[in-house]
Amino acid sequence: MISKQAEAVRRHWAAVRQAMTRPEDERPDDESWGDLTAEPRAVDYIEVEAGGLPAMWAVPKRGVQDRVLLCLHGGGFVGGSIYTHRKMFGHLAKATGARALIIEYRLAPAHTHPAQVDDVVDAYRWLIGQGIDPAHIAFTGDSSGGGLSITAQLRARDRGLPLPAAALPFSPWTDMEAAGKSYETNEDKDPFFYRETVRMLAATFLGEDGDPRDPLASPLHADLSGLGPIYIQVGGDEALLDDARMLDEHARKAGVDVRLDVFPGMQHTFQMAAGRAPEADDAVRRMAAWAAPRLGL
Amino acid sequence: MISKQAEAVRRHWAAVRQAMTRPEDERPDDESWGDLTAEPRAVDYIEVEAGGLPAMWAVPKRGVQDRVLLCLHGGGFVGGSIYTHRKMFGHLAKATGARALIIEYRLAPAHTHPAQVDDVVDAYRWLIGQGIDPAHIAFTGDSSGGGLSITAQLRARDRGLPLPAAALPFSPWTDMEAAGKSYETNEDKDPFFYRETVRMLAATFLGEDGDPRDPLASPLHADLSGLGPIYIQVGGDEALLDDARMLDEHARKAGVDVRLDVFPGMQHTFQMAAGRAPEADDAVRRMAAWAAPRLGL
Repeated sequence: MISKQAEAVRRHWAAVRQAMTRPEDERPDDESWGDLTAEPRAVDYIEVEAGGLPAMWAVPKRGVQDRVLLCLHGGGFVGGSIYTHRKMFGHLAKATGARALIIEYRLAPAHTHPAQVDDVVDAYRWLIGQGIDPAHIAFTGDSSGGGLSITAQLRARDRGLPLPAAALPFSPWTDMEAAGKSYETNEDKDPFFYRETVRMLAATFLGEDGDPRDPLASPLHADLSGLGPIYIQVGGDEALLDDARMLDEHARKAGVDVRLDVFPGMQHTFQMAAGRAPEADDAVRRMAAWAAPRLGL
Repeated sequence: MISKQAEAVRRHWAAVRQAMTRPEDERPDDESWGDLTAEPRAVDYIEVEAGGLPAMWAVPKRGVQDRVLLCLHGGGFVGGSIYTHRKMFGHLAKATGARALIIEYRLAPAHTHPAQVDDVVDAYRWLIGQGIDPAHIAFTGDSSGGGLSITAQLRARDRGLPLPAAALPFSPWTDMEAAGKSYETNEDKDPFFYRETVRMLAATFLGEDGDPRDPLASPLHADLSGLGPIYIQVGGDEALLDDARMLDEHARKAGVDVRLDVFPGMQHTFQMAAGRAPEADDAVRRMAAWAAPRLGL
């Protein structure tokens, strides 16, 4: 049975869908996504410039300084910010006992692929330059940020940087072709992610000459061998359920240590209800428990 | 004409009124009040203990360190927190170019008057102990915190502390008897603050033997002579409009330099819509412009 609090995530996506039909000045602003999340408390928030990008440290009062989650927010590559995801990544940092660096990569349509993977690499290089050991860094992100948590590793490797210790994509968007069968099987359950919507977002992200099979845009087409361990979470009611399953399968075939947890009845990025919905708190706890030993905690 | 964004404040209060009839576990949690406010951006938030109280620094990136707004959140002495008011006081700090120290005084019914004035004095003493000159401190607060921004000064003076430079109460709750005529004249405009509701809150705050005419609870019954300048803001559609007017009149009679701005059509603590409603942004700008020279900025 789904908690009342998790039900708020479904209502959020239904409201976002409905808002698309309203005049622009009557739509709730982008920040309302973050209203799903309760304050984690005992976490400080300090804005910085990280490799030229706007960024925010979320620093738990009880946590170590030298272990870092590099956090990549979702929003279809066209929305989301350090503010929408401040509290949610704050919960994850607090549960892990490490700092979170939440970054604001450039958004489409003003900036198309590969601006996003390049931005993550710049922030990652900056973080290493701050003296943080790559073995003590994990990439994490939801939705578009979930895909980025994998593709940016490939870009970093191409650029001669060492790989981070691990990655924790949740509700990752990994397939720019939107080919998954879950678009059909969860059509009545997911109130926002219709295939045509996701294809439109993909076209916006990839730009005019973009290839939906570009391995730096869709990690399903990338060679993932050699990557560190990956822990994927996804909601059972998501249209993007198969994006997670396909990433799991693709990484496994490449010899990567990968784990996938499907949360029955949950919606896209249900972890945004952290501090309110027990399912989100359970998910955050599982991510923290998985990440801590991989960061040497 | 009232902006669409300011209309959200009225909807908030109507929703709070309606929520009172629902089972407790179906009510939105206290933090939703803060969802009215947009992120001020370029402000850091650092939790501290201030004189034994939970507190939070809101530190604008471009501001001086040695000028401080001591911020007292509203919530009828039974609710509100450093989290509900983080962004709103963040806007005020950023506009003023000073730091804000938002404190969490103890709440009723667990703690009745005078726990709240005592807590503010403890935080104020702590702030002075941090090396901040009282002449560089202003007290500010909304609703119950607005009343406190005056009464806590009296308590501080009783305790031998120097007075702060100024006070900026907005939508202040100053009358524990709820005698103002605006409870009638704005009855159809204010969706939440009915006289019986406010009297119930006053009884909860004052406790069993409490006196609604206690000068440390109702500044309308206090000797305000000698206090520094006061700038009051209030919404024209508030049931508590007369609380502001009576404070203005009472302070003026005591020889205090006082200014009152009434914002036509605005609801209780409409400043919570800062960053969204032009009326709230105007109010914040006016407070900042008034406070800055009084803090020596």
